[in-house]
Amino acid sequence: MIRSTYVDNSRATFGVDLHLDVSGSRRKRALEEALRQAIAQGRLRSGTRLPSSRSLAADLGLARNTVVDVYAQLTAEGWLAARHGSGTKVADRPLASEVSAVMIADAPGSWSHDFRVGWPDLSSFPRSAWLDASRRAWSSAPDAELGYGDPRGTRALREEVTGYLGRARGVRTDASRIVICSGFTQAVGLLCRALHERGATALAVESYGLPETRQIANDAHLAVETMPIDENGALVSSAGAANAAMITPAHQFPLGMAMSPERRHDALGWARSRDALIIEDDYDGEFRYDREPVGALQGLDPDHVVYLGTTSKTLAPGLRLAWMILPGELVEPVARAKRLADRFAPALDQLTLAEFIRSGAYDRHVRRRRLAYRHRRDRLVGALAAAQVEGISAGLQAVVGLPAGVTEAEAIASADESGIALEGLDLYRVGPAAHPPAVVVGFATPPEHAYAAAISGLGKVLAGLSQPHVSVRVRTRAEG
Amino acid sequence: MIRSTYVDNSRATFGVDLHLDVSGSRRKRALEEALRQAIAQGRLRSGTRLPSSRSLAADLGLARNTVVDVYAQLTAEGWLAARHGSGTKVADRPLASEVSAVMIADAPGSWSHDFRVGWPDLSSFPRSAWLDASRRAWSSAPDAELGYGDPRGTRALREEVTGYLGRARGVRTDASRIVICSGFTQAVGLLCRALHERGATALAVESYGLPETRQIANDAHLAVETMPIDENGALVSSAGAANAAMITPAHQFPLGMAMSPERRHDALGWARSRDALIIEDDYDGEFRYDREPVGALQGLDPDHVVYLGTTSKTLAPGLRLAWMILPGELVEPVARAKRLADRFAPALDQLTLAEFIRSGAYDRHVRRRRLAYRHRRDRLVGALAAAQVEGISAGLQAVVGLPAGVTEAEAIASADESGIALEGLDLYRVGPAAHPPAVVVGFATPPEHAYAAAISGLGKVLAGLSQPHVSVRVRTRAEG
Repeated sequence: MIRSTYVDNSRATFGVDLHLDVSGSRRKRALEEALRQAIAQGRLRSGTRLPSSRSLAADLGLARNTVVDVYAQLTAEGWLAARHGSGTKVADRPLASEVSAVMIADAPGSWSHDFRVGWPDLSSFPRSAWLDASRRAWSSAPDAELGYGDPRGTRALREEVTGYLGRARGVRTDASRIVICSGFTQAVGLLCRALHERGATALAVESYGLPETRQIANDAHLAVETMPIDENGALVSSAGAANAAMITPAHQFPLGMAMSPERRHDALGWARSRDALIIEDDYDGEFRYDREPVGALQGLDPDHVVYLGTTSKTLAPGLRLAWMILPGELVEPVARAKRLADRFAPALDQLTLAEFIRSGAYDRHVRRRRLAYRHRRDRLVGALAAAQVEGISAGLQAVVGLPAGVTEAEAIASADESGIALEGLDLYRVGPAAHPPAVVVGFATPPEHAYAAAISGLGKVLAGLSQPHVSVRVRTRAEG
Repeated sequence: MIRSTYVDNSRATFGVDLHLDVSGSRRKRALEEALRQAIAQGRLRSGTRLPSSRSLAADLGLARNTVVDVYAQLTAEGWLAARHGSGTKVADRPLASEVSAVMIADAPGSWSHDFRVGWPDLSSFPRSAWLDASRRAWSSAPDAELGYGDPRGTRALREEVTGYLGRARGVRTDASRIVICSGFTQAVGLLCRALHERGATALAVESYGLPETRQIANDAHLAVETMPIDENGALVSSAGAANAAMITPAHQFPLGMAMSPERRHDALGWARSRDALIIEDDYDGEFRYDREPVGALQGLDPDHVVYLGTTSKTLAPGLRLAWMILPGELVEPVARAKRLADRFAPALDQLTLAEFIRSGAYDRHVRRRRLAYRHRRDRLVGALAAAQVEGISAGLQAVVGLPAGVTEAEAIASADESGIALEGLDLYRVGPAAHPPAVVVGFATPPEHAYAAAISGLGKVLAGLSQPHVSVRVRTRAEG
């Protein structure tokens, strides 16, 4: 029981009343902490006069100097106030408000099967190969790599990325024009800031894509226009007065078509004729299954194309490592934006990835993943024989059309009832609707061991949608 | 020698003229790459008609289908254009501009001794303990940790930080109100964005501090005012209409005084009376040498103080790991800003730091560093006996006054001539000048083995400054 209002100079009760437990070997520290707690929790109120150091020391069986030190410490911190001639009091402070827990969902959902878009198979992350690369990278890295570094990133990584992108994606660059970013999201933000600084006012994006791009661009003072997409990819020539057009030529996200040669040509023509930029989001360019991947647009015109790549699909989003290949005149403004955003990407992760690429482990991992995801996509197409799996044989997601009259919300609700996480295409619509209702299946998300059960469950959900009782069931649920 | 203008259907010369080397086991890939290079480098010009696939195949001794595939690939990528009835041509593209190297200084300077400010002793980084923690953290982390995570950071780390800051710095929080940031710079940027979103218009900063804070705040639409500093610390009551005041109460950066109890009290009073915020930059709060560290201001009023801490001084800037402790209502806007900036901090680094703290390695490392840096500061004071080392016995930097009539530029130039990197105080002035010329000595920067030589050299430079010939020498150098 707490009787802080009784506190006065009475040496017999102060410590006991406040439950000051100062036993143990570090009694000075314990007294200090006990007093801090008592004040923080309101047991010792503002203005309360504390016993003299002599009196409290005797009360607690401590040396007087110990109490003097503790009072001085808490006075320095602002918990206590010492006034000449009037002893030590608890300082004025507001009533201690409870430190309230703030609710932001921590955990992923509790579905049996997860087909959400944008996730690779996390169970395939090469943990020990990564740790080994980490250890090797460290054993040779000079101390200076641990200091404040180049905003573009560690040179070792920029050189490895240059080599990798050259051989895997036909990107033409050198290490000086690469900026290592903490993921794709950051890359877009830095680029938008740099473009704005150089006078840009508008960014064109595909009418389907990542919805947050609009807010990122707006935060950097760029207006956002949308470009229509058809079966040949985005119509960049419709980007009008935008200063840059962001596209996913290798594999449209999320619709899944590849940009046709003519459209690629038109896009570059648009950029050249207006001295505008193409921003090539090559988020999953490594994953083409029916043929050799189409090389990056960037290789055709490094002065008009910014290339963005990431490890989020090849390795894991948790790494937060992406790269941006820039025309020469954009390097400095983007590096400056990175410097002001967070100085540079974490050195250890960069060194580890550099070693991971250098040793060949990255190429090997990508190759293995390509085979595994290709197999997954084939099995998905097989399992959903009745439904239409759209897009080219590539990437980590596929759009699946819905039976006539079935809404995306109904499909998602039905999947949810079966313990399956599924996303509707409309989630990725950022311009006028141009596609009938569909779901987007992130077929890389379930772990390998659960994949058979996952696609079988998904197949049942989608097959059930065309039967009338399903929509009744969904409606019932929405009422409940 | 290159004769691309001679290229035509003549099967006898095409491959040779273009130096197409397609030997080796991956001849298809080699041909593709050779053609790409030839076009990129201008050896094959726009509009050049290529030999028929049959003809080139015979020329190079390849199967015709191989050449057909290569032409199709390069057409898909946009290097070639196939027109019905007129064969395959090199597509229109601008003259290949050289990929020009962009000069941004990569390397740190080449001084013999480095006293720049803000760096810990990188040679003391506990590499193997960190790698061990990394391995332990991974062995128990679920796959989901590698996916897209909570913008506030991994729960495991937020919980460890809660415990650490409570016991080491008197910070009162729970894991829900912590946002893990990629360094202090990012924390300030996110906070400024969140404050602006909630209607803030101005940030007050100390008249000496990090100069880039102004631009970070301005980028987030906050005006920046400066608060004067005297020997008791910043005068927050002069912050006027600012919505937040950023201070370094434990150890003013870079001047080095501790904020007096009265000023701490006044600062909280200012914040409460205006419903404004104190932003407590506790960049080196762990490093107090003459007494127990003064606890964080945040502990006195968690609703009016944002606490910022970092591993850049305790471990290494290369880690890019910092934390921000927020009043409840700021958590969501700051988390949203983090989400839009780069989604979340790298998972592996967070898990490793969590394990590093949990195992006690962090506390041990900080304790050892405290002893080492204390010893360094004592030796510095000894070596510069004649000069005035200002500020309390704390942190990783100390301000050292200059002899009358010596400018900071002269001192820096003189140090530079002796192979010593040194910074002037004016580099950190962000308001009206309030301090005579001085240098700021980052005494943690030199590696341990070089410290004796470094402070001896520095001592000589500073002692030499008061002698007339030095300024003559400096002038001579400036003319040369």
